[in-house]
Amino acid sequence: MARTVLKFGGTSVADLERISHVADIVAHRASKGEKLAVIVSAMSGETNKLVGLAKGAAGDALVGDEFDDEYDVVVASGEQVTSGLLALSLRKRGLDARSWLGWQMRMKTREGHGAARIDGFDEDSGLGAAIDTGQIAVIAGFQGVTEEGRVSTLGRGGSDTTAVAVAAALGSVPCDIYTDVDGVYTTDPRIVPQARRLERVSYEEMLEMASLGAKVLQTRSVELAMNHQVPLRVLSSFSGPEADNPGTWICNEDEIVEKQVVNGVTYSRDEAKVTLYGMEDKPGTSANLFALLAREGVNVDMIVQANARGEDRANMVFTCTSSDSEKAQRVLEANSDAVSFDKMDVARDVAKVSVVGVGMKSHTGVAETMFDALASKNINIDVISTSEIKISVLIDADYTELAVRALHTAFDLDAT
Amino acid sequence: MARTVLKFGGTSVADLERISHVADIVAHRASKGEKLAVIVSAMSGETNKLVGLAKGAAGDALVGDEFDDEYDVVVASGEQVTSGLLALSLRKRGLDARSWLGWQMRMKTREGHGAARIDGFDEDSGLGAAIDTGQIAVIAGFQGVTEEGRVSTLGRGGSDTTAVAVAAALGSVPCDIYTDVDGVYTTDPRIVPQARRLERVSYEEMLEMASLGAKVLQTRSVELAMNHQVPLRVLSSFSGPEADNPGTWICNEDEIVEKQVVNGVTYSRDEAKVTLYGMEDKPGTSANLFALLAREGVNVDMIVQANARGEDRANMVFTCTSSDSEKAQRVLEANSDAVSFDKMDVARDVAKVSVVGVGMKSHTGVAETMFDALASKNINIDVISTSEIKISVLIDADYTELAVRALHTAFDLDAT
Repeated sequence: MARTVLKFGGTSVADLERISHVADIVAHRASKGEKLAVIVSAMSGETNKLVGLAKGAAGDALVGDEFDDEYDVVVASGEQVTSGLLALSLRKRGLDARSWLGWQMRMKTREGHGAARIDGFDEDSGLGAAIDTGQIAVIAGFQGVTEEGRVSTLGRGGSDTTAVAVAAALGSVPCDIYTDVDGVYTTDPRIVPQARRLERVSYEEMLEMASLGAKVLQTRSVELAMNHQVPLRVLSSFSGPEADNPGTWICNEDEIVEKQVVNGVTYSRDEAKVTLYGMEDKPGTSANLFALLAREGVNVDMIVQANARGEDRANMVFTCTSSDSEKAQRVLEANSDAVSFDKMDVARDVAKVSVVGVGMKSHTGVAETMFDALASKNINIDVISTSEIKISVLIDADYTELAVRALHTAFDLDAT
Repeated sequence: MARTVLKFGGTSVADLERISHVADIVAHRASKGEKLAVIVSAMSGETNKLVGLAKGAAGDALVGDEFDDEYDVVVASGEQVTSGLLALSLRKRGLDARSWLGWQMRMKTREGHGAARIDGFDEDSGLGAAIDTGQIAVIAGFQGVTEEGRVSTLGRGGSDTTAVAVAAALGSVPCDIYTDVDGVYTTDPRIVPQARRLERVSYEEMLEMASLGAKVLQTRSVELAMNHQVPLRVLSSFSGPEADNPGTWICNEDEIVEKQVVNGVTYSRDEAKVTLYGMEDKPGTSANLFALLAREGVNVDMIVQANARGEDRANMVFTCTSSDSEKAQRVLEANSDAVSFDKMDVARDVAKVSVVGVGMKSHTGVAETMFDALASKNINIDVISTSEIKISVLIDADYTELAVRALHTAFDLDAT
């Protein structure tokens, strides 16, 4: 029988009762003959508690690489506890199980601490051989070990990445991400009650949706799954162990038979629009501006430049996250000699709404449908940006829900 | 400058404030040029919390070796957190420090899990070399690694043992055990306000005092210190970092100039007296009895056999801890065919009071002084047992404090 990877996030292992429920799910999967590697996060709340302790001990000094190694030692303990507890809970059910910590499976990472990147684990550690004998491997997610033999962590959401990396190393086997929702939806069901669970979505769409604000999966884990051709599935850990629980498969585009033009509508309120009036309009000005922002770690999203005809001054608009916008403002004010402009304006009452779908590659008229739908609700579009499979617009934040509902209907996504 | 080992227990690192205070103490010691290895326990309360979680996950099944490996994975995380936090707190003060986990220093253990025994750590791990460069090693106590590369723990109080093992491996260097009392006292100051801190006490005396109920140090750590000639000191972590804080040295008898006949009075209330009336009086009866109890893990302390002249029946009295007495009762009732007696009586309202001192080896009259002092207060002695450096008596538990005070005065231990 085939190897399979399961992953359970923080809310799925929040307390002993939930861990016991997870053990029931794992036991049921094992009873079907699957050879299982199970990745667990820290019990929800634990990571925040540990981060708080580390920050308290280090004081304001906890910035940058100098302290990150010890931060990792403290924070990685959360997943260690859950892996031991789930192993105990499985043994209580008479199953053969053992925990694996990052250093035991030699889950090698690089690029230091705090937000390390996975290089994959060492097959010599015996993990693959162990699960093939029928022993369930309960793996502490989010953690690895550096070349120097120190504990490293992968940054927030890192357990998804652990799961995909393990699935890749075990032979690109299927990876089921159990979470507190039962799949990927066409949009946020809290805003659109008619939102539908998608049966399948392509890696590319999922990547766009993840980076545009759908919080089901970590972007990095989707990238890794796409690169290693790991079939990913998102499903609920809150159903009964034997419940019909199809979830959403994330797979290659060509495995999706009925392609929708648009598969999802996403939104993000953590946006800010920075307008620089009267910038000098000569070659190199934009390059200077964005080089400066990049150096300070400001992640710029949309960019629009509007030149008034015949003038040597231009207006520049860009968007970034709300927290980055404060940094941008500080940096630009401090460097007015390098980048000159007459006036800066920062708007934080904006939201980004996007439609995503691989069908856009071969269909025209998506932009028209989108703009019509927004216009019909009198929603003004501020900035537009597009990629091959998505169109994003920046609008007044007050209209977020209205826009999402209008687009969900306009693209025939409402459940019948 | 010499290598030194410091150890801080759970109450000394109970929260961030206390950890910060410990960092001040360590910083002060480092400023004097000492090359430091610092062993830490889990923050007080954490180990109990983790044990509770492990028991909750395993249910009643958490008995015996079969589950202990995962129990260790869960419980060892407590010391991991503290080691990271103290390392951060030291770096905040500008000091070079790093944490060392059991597997990183290759603290090898044997005899399985839950209460493993230390074999010492691997010098190749680089720990000794690191502290000689001036880097402070912050070591997670209580934990090690088995030959199979699994996490092991040493059982309660194991951090003392870690500290002594590290001191032994670093060249039998001095080991300061920081705790919540400022040294070893002639008796419990809560019972006798005139109790005095001892400047020096011999390993042998400390061993007797530890096993007789003085909870300052773990018996195993004292044994290890004696075997490896590690100079031990007990002192308070609650004094100021630069306070005059002499503590109590635990050392060889010949290093103690002014030997007292009796150095300490100890007591224990966790005692039970089991009387078996009318046992068959023939060779092999006692051997059968105590073999049976040993097999069931009952730790027998005092033993008295009284034969009525000319009868073929004897009465047997033995003592053990109160919790062991329930097991003893169960075992003896179930095995009445192997060990026959007329009637069993178990008294749990008894206490053991002892006087300890290396001076007893060369002085006579200690027993007389002890029995006179008890008699003068009308305290009846039930059972007596002696070793080369201690005399213990079993008495009615109601008289515990009275007996301790009377003996403390009779042996001239009261502070003037």
